[in-house]
Amino acid sequence: MRKIGVLTSGGDAPGMNAAVRAVVRCGIDRGMEVYGIERGYEGLIEGEIREMTMSSVGDILHRGGTILRTARSERFKTEAGQKHAMNVLEAFGIEGIVVIGGDGSFRGGLELSKRGVPVMGIPGTIDNDLGYTDYTIGFDTAVNTVLSAVTNIRDTSSSHERATVIEVMGRHCGDIALYAGLTGGADNILVPEMPFDINKVCRKIIQGKNRGKLHDIIMKAEGVEVDTQELAQMIEERTGKETRVVILAYLQRGGSPTAKDRMLASRMGSKAVELLYDDEESRAIGICGSEICAYELAEALEMKSPFNTELYELADILSK
Amino acid sequence: MRKIGVLTSGGDAPGMNAAVRAVVRCGIDRGMEVYGIERGYEGLIEGEIREMTMSSVGDILHRGGTILRTARSERFKTEAGQKHAMNVLEAFGIEGIVVIGGDGSFRGGLELSKRGVPVMGIPGTIDNDLGYTDYTIGFDTAVNTVLSAVTNIRDTSSSHERATVIEVMGRHCGDIALYAGLTGGADNILVPEMPFDINKVCRKIIQGKNRGKLHDIIMKAEGVEVDTQELAQMIEERTGKETRVVILAYLQRGGSPTAKDRMLASRMGSKAVELLYDDEESRAIGICGSEICAYELAEALEMKSPFNTELYELADILSK
Amino acid sequence: MRKIGVLTSGGDAPGMNAAVRAVVRCGIDRGMEVYGIERGYEGLIEGEIREMTMSSVGDILHRGGTILRTARSERFKTEAGQKHAMNVLEAFGIEGIVVIGGDGSFRGGLELSKRGVPVMGIPGTIDNDLGYTDYTIGFDTAVNTVLSAVTNIRDTSSSHERATVIEVMGRHCGDIALYAGLTGGADNILVPEMPFDINKVCRKIIQGKNRGKLHDIIMKAEGVEVDTQELAQMIEERTGKETRVVILAYLQRGGSPTAKDRMLASRMGSKAVELLYDDEESRAIGICGSEICAYELAEALEMKSPFNTELYELADILSK
Amino acid sequence: MRKIGVLTSGGDAPGMNAAVRAVVRCGIDRGMEVYGIERGYEGLIEGEIREMTMSSVGDILHRGGTILRTARSERFKTEAGQKHAMNVLEAFGIEGIVVIGGDGSFRGGLELSKRGVPVMGIPGTIDNDLGYTDYTIGFDTAVNTVLSAVTNIRDTSSSHERATVIEVMGRHCGDIALYAGLTGGADNILVPEMPFDINKVCRKIIQGKNRGKLHDIIMKAEGVEVDTQELAQMIEERTGKETRVVILAYLQRGGSPTAKDRMLASRMGSKAVELLYDDEESRAIGICGSEICAYELAEALEMKSPFNTELYELADILSK
Repeated sequence: MRKIGVLTSGGDAPGMNAAVRAVVRCGIDRGMEVYGIERGYEGLIEGEIREMTMSSVGDILHRGGTILRTARSERFKTEAGQKHAMNVLEAFGIEGIVVIGGDGSFRGGLELSKRGVPVMGIPGTIDNDLGYTDYTIGFDTAVNTVLSAVTNIRDTSSSHERATVIEVMGRHCGDIALYAGLTGGADNILVPEMPFDINKVCRKIIQGKNRGKLHDIIMKAEGVEVDTQELAQMIEERTGKETRVVILAYLQRGGSPTAKDRMLASRMGSKAVELLYDDEESRAIGICGSEICAYELAEALEMKSPFNTELYELADILSK
Repeated sequence: MRKIGVLTSGGDAPGMNAAVRAVVRCGIDRGMEVYGIERGYEGLIEGEIREMTMSSVGDILHRGGTILRTARSERFKTEAGQKHAMNVLEAFGIEGIVVIGGDGSFRGGLELSKRGVPVMGIPGTIDNDLGYTDYTIGFDTAVNTVLSAVTNIRDTSSSHERATVIEVMGRHCGDIALYAGLTGGADNILVPEMPFDINKVCRKIIQGKNRGKLHDIIMKAEGVEVDTQELAQMIEERTGKETRVVILAYLQRGGSPTAKDRMLASRMGSKAVELLYDDEESRAIGICGSEICAYELAEALEMKSPFNTELYELADILSK
Repeated sequence: MRKIGVLTSGGDAPGMNAAVRAVVRCGIDRGMEVYGIERGYEGLIEGEIREMTMSSVGDILHRGGTILRTARSERFKTEAGQKHAMNVLEAFGIEGIVVIGGDGSFRGGLELSKRGVPVMGIPGTIDNDLGYTDYTIGFDTAVNTVLSAVTNIRDTSSSHERATVIEVMGRHCGDIALYAGLTGGADNILVPEMPFDINKVCRKIIQGKNRGKLHDIIMKAEGVEVDTQELAQMIEERTGKETRVVILAYLQRGGSPTAKDRMLASRMGSKAVELLYDDEESRAIGICGSEICAYELAEALEMKSPFNTELYELADILSK
Repeated sequence: MRKIGVLTSGGDAPGMNAAVRAVVRCGIDRGMEVYGIERGYEGLIEGEIREMTMSSVGDILHRGGTILRTARSERFKTEAGQKHAMNVLEAFGIEGIVVIGGDGSFRGGLELSKRGVPVMGIPGTIDNDLGYTDYTIGFDTAVNTVLSAVTNIRDTSSSHERATVIEVMGRHCGDIALYAGLTGGADNILVPEMPFDINKVCRKIIQGKNRGKLHDIIMKAEGVEVDTQELAQMIEERTGKETRVVILAYLQRGGSPTAKDRMLASRMGSKAVELLYDDEESRAIGICGSEICAYELAEALEMKSPFNTELYELADILSK
């Protein structure tokens, strides 16, 4: 393959730029032409495409967000939109593309794949909700961002002997809450994968209080079926402990990527180019243990990773 | 004076520990006994008092929050509560106290002062809302905390070509929004001191868009008389630009104090001890230009500092 | 087993406290008594031992260094010292211990193991130089610490169009240089495992210059057989590019552990307790892929992990 | 005045970009043309000049270093070089310039001023060594950078019960050491302005040891007349305490500017433009207390600010 494209789609994630850089530089190093497609599938339809050079990805490795920008595209969900996208790829002579994004972005890629364009998917999302890979790009950065917020909040929480509910991202996948909760020393971790039990939450807060604990951190994924403000009120009523709410929201999306995310992005970008260079079929690229792995794209989208109950229980023991 | 007490009261602020450390060590250095009073006026009434040593304030200089903890006290607002507090001070032989906190804490100190105990007030609040001093302890840290949030949010905001409304603390005083807005390159700064004009806000966003600006940051103090979520909707409707909301809330309160706040706290703590040592009357300690200043306590509480319109206009020019 | 001890030994590493916390809390949770041994093997000989409680490891999860402190012990290298240590363990009724440290600490543990005390080794060192485990506790934090230094240095380096040699830790193992170099976008990475070629270094700097690159970062592990200052001079003479040196030294050792290191430490600490609880023989605990693994202690010390040439070559391509 | 230029010269400092941004945007806002001169006086001689727009200074406010780059210029020190520079300014129709830099850069500006070009000097240097202004741009950032290094080093220092000598910048001016030492809780602060007394240094270390202090931080400005490595040896020999050295070097120069430095840079940039707009004579712009001040350029270079012995003594008391 001689000409490839790269785009970022869906919610942005720290490390997307590191992945774009790896795709561009590894591609050029193999003698390919690499085209940057702006604003995801929307930009593809619009033909917002420019050839990338070694320099065009200089000084972006440490930047959050994505220089290719990203957007949702209603049009691309239609037959017409996809046909149009194919015409644009043909017009530019682009033979295969690398899609950096989450579940939705991969499904979009699958449509192009069905129409004959090899698509290599790189998991770029902070949610870590793709079953076929141990980790997604941006997850480690998001967890560390939540940790530094926890550090700030703990100061205030202790000084006032308060409980604080921290709402983090995660509609269906509680990994951010689980990892940040365990490593942040949260007293309670609430995730969509586990039943919500207000009594268990209050029990731990009361136990902590009796043990002389000053602060209580409740780490809650947004997907848990209880409103965060209401949860705070319930805790306050049942434990008599003043309870505050902090919703981290978009803070978790940005920031300079951690070493781990940059490494993951660099290795995956390199793998994506290698697969296109070897004219492989569409693949979803992931990390399995310490190895970069690649699954058949459609297959990968079906794979589910069970919730890590072992970590969940460990977190409970460590915060006793 | 031989025996003094120190307490922190009201909302905590980064640098309170640095101030406590300075009071304790400067006091001991002058041969005084220094007593730490826990949980503000509530702890004073309860007699939660312990003698401090050089070591008891070791390793706290860089910590956010307050090791003396803080609390609101309804009882202290009553005649009875204040009398009780006086008895406790007498029982411990404490001749004067240092109160680290905001407006409300100072008013509490004034009551003790009227009953004959010299009280030295140190401005510990992130809001910078005390008229007699240029800066309060914690303000610089809070502004820098907001700045790092802005950096994170800008990444995402640019990638999605979105506008983001960041709500920061400040019910009556817009200084956090003003300083963080100017130094964070916010396109719009909304403070309680200035009239809110939705058209001006939208005008700047549209101008920026036409100039090819990708992100828009609207820095809004919580005290501005428009609901933050509603504001985001108004902007989205009127500019057609997707608009998100981030409420920083308690994130702004914690964190390790900046050099500036540690310096301010150290100098003010030293000054408070000096004034008590010299048997001066109750004072509010502040920073005026580069000098530490001290006003008669009651007087200080009456002083108002005008909103800095010069900075407000400069911010507007710089974000054009 | 009912009574266990835990000590940290050798150079400190971020995450050691997280491991101590996990050992203490998981041990107590299993109904064991857990004793903290201060200052490594030296404190063991001296009998500097105290029983730990749930609270005694509170608020340390996010702290760098080690609350148990660490020290080198000449005495423990002697027959007499080891006998003495055994007597102390017997006196306290400690049946097994967890040793958190590097290669040397494990060898010390092996001596106790030979004398009949089960020893569980947890890899706590920033160098990542233990062959049996993919990662050691502290490595991820150290790499991220180097990255933030690179960010600072790049600013100055670009403004002055200078080259900068950054010397990082790693006498025999170049992993810090490799990981921080690849993820920091270093133009050259010098590690003890690969031959040093001044011409290759200069070639890349000259190529970068011709490509309009402003800054050059040379990431050098201390173990590379060329003096860092001399290297800078050689580069300056051969490329005509002003070249500066920064030696990060002990900066790399401290700091709050990253999420990854806290997670690793928590999981390994839990595993160590489980093995002692089950009266297993001495083991070295590690992470293999995404699983916690445990090798026979003596065996583990013999295992070598080959240098990751794949990453080394990827770094070269990415920095072209 | 209609056409102005701006350049950065000498060592770079965090906040220089914020100053450039303010000069450009305030200039354009007043209807002036603003030209960016690259690589300081060297670029001026070479005619490396481009007109700046509102957008050309977008997204630089939070960046360290300087987008205009900086360089030393031997040629500009000559009569011929200065004449040449004047010709270039005339060729571009540039009527006045803003020079952002330190002492040397101001002296260069003075030469142009003598030849009839109004020059407004903005103090951009981390050293805070300009007598006419309370603070220089970059100083606050540098001090905070040193503080975060101290936090890292303290962890390791405590775990090993070691002393650490931290060498910071400051050849003639010890302000970085003084401010970072006081706010970092250094046990000893060594500055060029005060006599060096090895006995005093050791006395405090021994006292601290006896008080059960685990770590000792000695903050030393590079200008102090004792070699840092030798100092460490002297301390080790005389106190028996293991002593390490960390030289922060260029780490202190980079990084994203703090809120205080961005504010200072923005206000000074605005003032410089105002003065040129009003056709004022050459001035050195500074901050005096909380007000922006402007001195006659030649005069400003003669002004000396005495070393702040009050802070020096306070630091000594606080670290007892």
